[in-house]
Parts: sequence; C-alpha cells; structure tokens
Amino acid sequence: MFDLVIKNGLCLINGNFLRYNIGVEGNRIAYVGKEDIKGEEKINAEGCFVLPGLFNAHTHSAMTLLRGYAEGLPLKDWLEKVWEMEAKLDEKAVYLGAKLACVEMLKNGITCFADMYIHMDGVARAVEETGIRAVLGYGMADRGNDDRAKEELRIAKDFIKRWNGKERIKCILTPHAVYTCSKDFLAKISEIAKENGFIKHIHASETFWEVKEAKRRYGMSPIELLDSIGFLDSNTVLAHGVWLSDSDMELISKSGSSVAHCPSSNLKLSSGIAKVAEMLEKGINVCLGTDGAASNNMLNLFNEMRISALLQQLRRKFLNPAKYLEMATWNGYRAYGIDSGSVERGMLADLVIMEIGQSHRPIYDPVNSIVYSSLGSEVRDVIVDGRIALEDRNPVYVDLEKLCEEVSSFAFFHSSL
Amino acid sequence: MFDLVIKNGLCLINGNFLRYNIGVEGNRIAYVGKEDIKGEEKINAEGCFVLPGLFNAHTHSAMTLLRGYAEGLPLKDWLEKVWEMEAKLDEKAVYLGAKLACVEMLKNGITCFADMYIHMDGVARAVEETGIRAVLGYGMADRGNDDRAKEELRIAKDFIKRWNGKERIKCILTPHAVYTCSKDFLAKISEIAKENGFIKHIHASETFWEVKEAKRRYGMSPIELLDSIGFLDSNTVLAHGVWLSDSDMELISKSGSSVAHCPSSNLKLSSGIAKVAEMLEKGINVCLGTDGAASNNMLNLFNEMRISALLQQLRRKFLNPAKYLEMATWNGYRAYGIDSGSVERGMLADLVIMEIGQSHRPIYDPVNSIVYSSLGSEVRDVIVDGRIALEDRNPVYVDLEKLCEEVSSFAFFHSSL
Repeated sequence: MFDLVIKNGLCLINGNFLRYNIGVEGNRIAYVGKEDIKGEEKINAEGCFVLPGLFNAHTHSAMTLLRGYAEGLPLKDWLEKVWEMEAKLDEKAVYLGAKLACVEMLKNGITCFADMYIHMDGVARAVEETGIRAVLGYGMADRGNDDRAKEELRIAKDFIKRWNGKERIKCILTPHAVYTCSKDFLAKISEIAKENGFIKHIHASETFWEVKEAKRRYGMSPIELLDSIGFLDSNTVLAHGVWLSDSDMELISKSGSSVAHCPSSNLKLSSGIAKVAEMLEKGINVCLGTDGAASNNMLNLFNEMRISALLQQLRRKFLNPAKYLEMATWNGYRAYGIDSGSVERGMLADLVIMEIGQSHRPIYDPVNSIVYSSLGSEVRDVIVDGRIALEDRNPVYVDLEKLCEEVSSFAFFHSSL
Repeated sequence: MFDLVIKNGLCLINGNFLRYNIGVEGNRIAYVGKEDIKGEEKINAEGCFVLPGLFNAHTHSAMTLLRGYAEGLPLKDWLEKVWEMEAKLDEKAVYLGAKLACVEMLKNGITCFADMYIHMDGVARAVEETGIRAVLGYGMADRGNDDRAKEELRIAKDFIKRWNGKERIKCILTPHAVYTCSKDFLAKISEIAKENGFIKHIHASETFWEVKEAKRRYGMSPIELLDSIGFLDSNTVLAHGVWLSDSDMELISKSGSSVAHCPSSNLKLSSGIAKVAEMLEKGINVCLGTDGAASNNMLNLFNEMRISALLQQLRRKFLNPAKYLEMATWNGYRAYGIDSGSVERGMLADLVIMEIGQSHRPIYDPVNSIVYSSLGSEVRDVIVDGRIALEDRNPVYVDLEKLCEEVSSFAFFHSSL
C-alpha cells in the first residue's frame, strides 16, 4: 500500500512514453511499473501524460506585481519604471506577488523554481504556503562599497539561516551580476559558497552592454572575470548567457557550471538569442527559466520550450525536441543539486499530470506534442514532494480568488473601474 | 428584445475597455451600450473581456494532420516528409484535418480564417459544420505548364461556384507563389480577380531563397514582379513578407495590399523575422496568421501576437501593444473585405468572451494582459455570425471526442499503443 498512486498515465520514462503506474511513499517515488498497485490516495491519469516536474531555473517571482506595467518601452525606460515600482515593495508585497507566481507556476506544471530578489522572507513564506519547491537567495549587490558588501552578505546569510532546508526550500548565494558586484565581493561570496557547499546563481552575459562594460573595466568578459576569481564550478548557475564567446563556453563547460536560458525575456528586453545548440554541443548543462513576469510576461516553461526551439530553428539549429524537455526538467534539478526531474524510483516525487489536449493531436511523438503544442493549461494535477499541490487545475493550499483580489490592489486599472 | 445579449463584460470599444452590454440581432451587432437590454439568449460576461473575433489571415487548416510529424529537421528534409504525406491526403482526410483546425481555432477565439490548400471542398464542409467563418481558395500552381494552368483555374473556379457566399464562406483566388506559378498565369489570375471582384491571396517573400530565385529568373523581387503585372491592389493579401526591401514595402503600401504576418512559422522554418514595425510605419495593413499546424504547431493567435511583439522588441522596435491586437482582429477583416473585427453597431456579430485569467493579473492595462499574457485557453465563449459556436470551451456543433479519435488514425503513435 503506497501513500499515493498514479495510474494509467503515459509516463515519460527514460525518454519513452509508457503506460505505467507510479507509487509514491513519503516524498519519494517508490515504484514505477506495470503492476496494479494500491494506494491511500489514487489519481487516475488515463488520457494524460505524466512528466517529471518542470524546473524554472531563473525567475524573480514577486515581479508578477509588475506584469504588464511597463510595456512598449525600450530597456532604459522599462528599467526606470520598474525600479521606481520596486522601491515601493515591502515584504508583504513580495509575499503576495510570489504567492501569485507560485500558483501560476504550479498551474503550468512547474514544481521548483530558482529565485533571487529582495525581501526574500516573503518569497519563502509563499513557498511554504503554496506547497511548491524552491531554491532561494537574497539578490546581493555591493556596487563597489565595502560597507554595503558586508550588509548584503549579512542579509543573505540571515535568510539562509532562517530558511535553508525548511519547507522544500534550498537556500543559495545569489550575487546579482558582475556589473553590480565588485570583483572582491564576488570572490568572497565564492569562498563562502565553497566552505559551506552552497550553490551560487548570478546573471551573466545577458546583454551586449554587460560584456562590453566588463571588458572596459577588467579587460575580460564576465565569464573570464568569474573564472579568474575561481567563481565557476559545478555549483554555479549562470542566468541568461546570451553573449557567450566560444572561449566563454569552453570555460563554462570545463568548470561544470550550468546556464539558465530565458528566451522570452531575452527577446522582450532586446538582449538577443542565446546559442543553445552550441552550448549543448560543448556539453554545458543548459536549463530553462522564465525570468520575472515583468519581462516575459508569463511563468510558463511550455512557452519557453517552444520559443527556445523556434529561435534555435531560426538560427538553423535543429535539435532533437527531447532536448528542450530535458532542459525544462532534469537539467534544472541537476544544476541546483536536487535529486528530482525524472520519473524513476528513488527520486523526489515531483510530478505533473497533463491532459492530452486538442492541440496535441494527432500524436506522432508525444515529445513533439509537449514541446511544440502545449499551452500549459493542459496541466491538471501537480505533485510536489509527494503531496498534491494542484488538483484538477486548482491550487490545493490557496484561496485563489482572495489572492487575486489582494494582488489587484497593486494595479491601477482595477481600481479605476 | 434582441436575439442574443452579452452582459457585463469588459468590452473592447474603440481601443478602450468599457463595462458595456451588447445586443445581437440576426448575424449583426445591433446594440452596444450601458442600457439593461433583454434578449432571447443571454450570456453573462462578468469577469471577462469581450473582444472582436480574431482573424487567422493565413493558414492551411488541414495540415493539423501533419502536426508534430516532421520535427527537428531543416527545411529541405521537413518539406520532403510533408510532401510525401500530402500526396496521400484525399478530401475526407482534408475534411477531418480542417474540422480539427476549426475547433482549435474557435477554442482560441478565432472566428474567421483564410485558407489555401488542396481538396478544398473538405475544408468548406468543415467550415459549414463547425460554425466558423472562412475565406477559402484552391491553392493553384501551374509550374510553367499551360495545360496545368487551365486545369488549376478550372478547379479553383468550380470551387468558387459551389461555395462562394454559402455558409459564412467567402471564396477567393489563391495562386501559391511566384516560384510555383508562371508570370502569365499570375497575370491571368489577376485579370479574372479584377473582373469578378475576387480577393487574391499568395505567398510572397517568405524566404531569402524565394527573393534570390525571382531576381535570377525575372531580374525583379517577388513584389516587383507582382507589381509589374498589376497583381498588387487593395484586394490582395501577401502571406509572410519576411524579406521585403524598403522599395518592396513602398510598392505594397501604394497599392493598398495587405501582408499576413506569420511569426511562429517564419521562425520554425528558418525563414526570418518580418519587419512589422517598418511595414506599419509605411501604412501597410499587416494582419496575423498562424500558417499551417505543421509549421507552427498551434492555431493560436494569442501566441502569434505575443511572439510577434517579442520579436519586434528583439529588433528594438517598441510598438504600442494595441497594434498587435489590431493586427489579430480588425486588420484581418479589412484585408479580406469582411465588415467585422470591431465591437460596434452594424458589424457582423463575431465576438469572443474570454475569462480574465491568473496570468492576466494584476491588470494595469487590459491590452497588455491580452497581448503578452494570454494562452488562448482563457477563451470561454465564441459567437460567429450571431450564433454561439463555442460555449463554455466546448464546440457547439462538433462531437470533439469522436473527431479526435478519427484524426488519431492518421498518427502512428496512437496505433502503436
């Protein structure tokens, strides 16, 4: 008798779709196979795909509050509006925005996300309450000021002490970027991370300007700079990686660092198109992120898989579509050192049950249907850490109507009606 | 007493969202305003946006049958697989594929589509049965052969005789492209179109190869060639228009021709990114299409609006987001000469009622929410020609389960289970 069984779904097992049953014990997958197993709780997945949970490898969840706030604007004007609004955020606002994000992500089959932002206790509380899994860090930026560096590190460490290991939360160190953090500060963070076994997550080579600026200041690309201070290792996740040179990619590949690719955001903010095909060729672990909702505007990895594939095809790079599904699942968990992202015995029970929808038909190969023809709204049930967090498209632990009302108070349109 | 009333929705009226009621009489919008009107049938649109119906300005609906069939392949291999399969299609297959497409389009808020393909009677029957509106033409290609030219024209004219003006169908002339049709054939079609007031729809400047080939054969770009034979006028819709020079755009603008922009397909088949911003600047009527499901893979204009906007932003072209909504609605109806695409009195009653979804929140400006944050699955009810064709997400005139079963017989995966 398992705690939970999922029956008759088309389960993604080792790259194949098989009509298997899945047994969950505690927070782990305990059985995958054809036997007619029994469980305390039972989900009928007939007519559904069963996938490992998706991992959103780079986001700023509370930025749902700014979704649609600054549209039709070039980056400079966009940033000004966003910063003005962010200055007004407090922990309660961040909690509400992150909670809306957690529900949206669950609805789109995301079982874990990596977030760096401010007022992170608000994000942690949202994770705690919604049942999702997360990798969280306080976004540090010393801007070359020693006192500020100390204060930023203090906030980051305090956050880690309060939340690491609690409630499906893994805490990490998240310096913002090489243009907002000094070289010494980044070296110090790298040292602390190594001593304590922390993962590091940083924006890197997102824009052409960023690379140009690093070369001007240091005579090195952002990746070369990070390499020179020993920052790059297999516990490092680099967000964006749009403007990587061949030798940057070699450094990343050699170090075992991962890249969190955010295709929609890179289009929206005019950053560019990342060389995903080349990165994979060089053996880099590429995972997939939505970035914040202000630069996307959805927290939906089905969208990102599809857009990533379309953009690579624009570049005449025709990858096996299964690669994109790996990027959205397994590669994310691998990047952040969490043993999930695959439907197999012993893994954490983070699972997605999605209906085979109208736009999936006809099905020649389910991977193609999932990567190219899924909206995200096909996701019916989501299991995180062995517990059902989304049931029949409704978040189990959240009063969504109440939440939407609270969030609406941040927008002007609703109040003017 | 109206035939149908839609109450309390946030209706898009002249670019603004107003809480209005809409009255429908026959197939026309007969009232738009604040009065508490009564109707035989009533739809409560509380908590919903009410939009004009979306127009899919370029597709090959029956290609749903080939969705996901040829993935991860460069154009040449893709075409070989697609052509091999298309040779096997008959009218019944086209009917089934088109019917699946019609339902998918209705579910995504599309009330009218423009289609050129083979076995068009199958498409017309699908339109008749599903309740959608369509602009249909037999896809003609003489490949420089006079006998074939005559036979192609005969098929096209017979189709027009059988279906024009029936069942929400408008028939048009659809030569395939300048590289598959001879100059004389295109001139002949243009002449017939002028005599009879038919709209013409043709692929033009989709790929770099096409432009190069036209210059080699004619010393002219495809647009210059079409202009030289008097093909370009306000009754012409050019599909794709990815590789337009400035002077091509001037010619199109001067002639009053429209361009059907298909961003997803242009990425997927490595064609390129159309210069939408420049076209709009020059006053060209740009509308939006999905192309066929084999090169998209979804028939979803919410997707196309979003991708189009993201791609223009990649090009550092920041349009007012309302432009994309116009492209997906009003501009399509204008291109094909149908008086719909706007929520106003006297227009055909083609309307979409979509729920304000989780990913729309918070709402600063509904246009931003619709363009950047909609999946399509928010569409709840669709009215075409005054009649409800989609109700609570279900097609009114189609047994969807049966249809999906029939369509599945075309795919290998299902039969192998």
